Amino acid sequence: MAAIKRTERTRVKRVPDRGKYDRAVIDAILDEALIAHVAFDHDGAPAIIPTGFWRNGNELLIHGSSKSRMLLALRDGAPCCVCVTLLDGLVLARSAFHHSINYRSVVVYGAMHEISDAEPKLEALKAFTDRVAPGRWPEIRPPNAQEFKATTVLSMPINEASAKVRVGPPADDEPDYALPVWAGVVPIRLTASEPETDPAMKHHADVPEHARHFNMLAKG
Amino acid sequence: MAAIKRTERTRVKRVPDRGKYDRAVIDAILDEALIAHVAFDHDGAPAIIPTGFWRNGNELLIHGSSKSRMLLALRDGAPCCVCVTLLDGLVLARSAFHHSINYRSVVVYGAMHEISDAEPKLEALKAFTDRVAPGRWPEIRPPNAQEFKATTVLSMPINEASAKVRVGPPADDEPDYALPVWAGVVPIRLTASEPETDPAMKHHADVPEHARHFNMLAKG
Repeated sequence: MAAIKRTERTRVKRVPDRGKYDRAVIDAILDEALIAHVAFDHDGAPAIIPTGFWRNGNELLIHGSSKSRMLLALRDGAPCCVCVTLLDGLVLARSAFHHSINYRSVVVYGAMHEISDAEPKLEALKAFTDRVAPGRWPEIRPPNAQEFKATTVLSMPINEASAKVRVGPPADDEPDYALPVWAGVVPIRLTASEPETDPAMKHHADVPEHARHFNMLAKG
Repeated sequence: MAAIKRTERTRVKRVPDRGKYDRAVIDAILDEALIAHVAFDHDGAPAIIPTGFWRNGNELLIHGSSKSRMLLALRDGAPCCVCVTLLDGLVLARSAFHHSINYRSVVVYGAMHEISDAEPKLEALKAFTDRVAPGRWPEIRPPNAQEFKATTVLSMPINEASAKVRVGPPADDEPDYALPVWAGVVPIRLTASEPETDPAMKHHADVPEHARHFNMLAKG
């Protein structure tokens, strides 16, 4: 596994203690999150699009319509930044200044390249489905030729990357601990609730395990 | 209230039905979300930083350290893009191609300006606290002169903006409804759990209402 490359732009400058450059920390955040925000240049100004994503070893992958302006721009190697953020809690301190948020985020800089060969492209789409709903791929209709062509898969190395993590209770200034105000953390997490069966179902089918116990939300 | 300005870059091109340009829809998404992703140019390449934010009428505000590279860049009017995303569900379709995500997102383009006058700046910080924890401001120690100076508050008009929303069950191709596979939506939302009192508390204080029933998560 390639090492994480530390550069000036991935160095966490504000509150440096929160910066993490270990691949295991970065990978764990990427594997728990469902949504990434991707920034790219659009006619001379930054643009962001939120998108599903997945990780394959040292690579971060996204997909979408072959006509998407973001994918068209990124396919040609435009510089981009991908950010993934997990919100873990509200930090309610004794002083306004030390209010904060507990979170885990990853930023990856670099450029995307297209996965255009049929076999790795299909494997990539299968891997994305497996990440969100393990075991679902064999049950569903795979992409037909037209759908496959209409889908672009892009990949970027997780190389120039860093994580930023805040955990734990408020960190107030020493004299403020004497204040009578309640201080602490309100934990926040993503949770899945009971699956809603499509009203258009024509057959009975049991709710599958991958829908009932959504795997990525199990950690909370 | 100023109208939303529709421009080429805020027009939702992929699946145009998902594009929403009503201020009420945009405001509701902004008011429910806790985190925004802000993209800006950093030495010729896009960068993203996740941050807390709040809305004041037609303005979207962020704050942070006066030394933050993002705030320094944006304070001088660099073009930026702010994206706010609420994840609502996984859409498990009968075909791989029609798997999707239910979400509500807002993108705002423009530039920030600094709120530097003391009175509106303090009001802005108070408004941010009120948004996250209504009623907390009078209980906590307000910013002292040094903290106030070390904090930068930036604001941008919510003018060139659009929302994108996907709701509802899968939309499969007609023949695929005959397949025996379960299809539906796994609802997802942010939830708050029992507040964790700071172990460093020196006095007893009841957990306040704003921590126990975190207001922005009440909608689920």
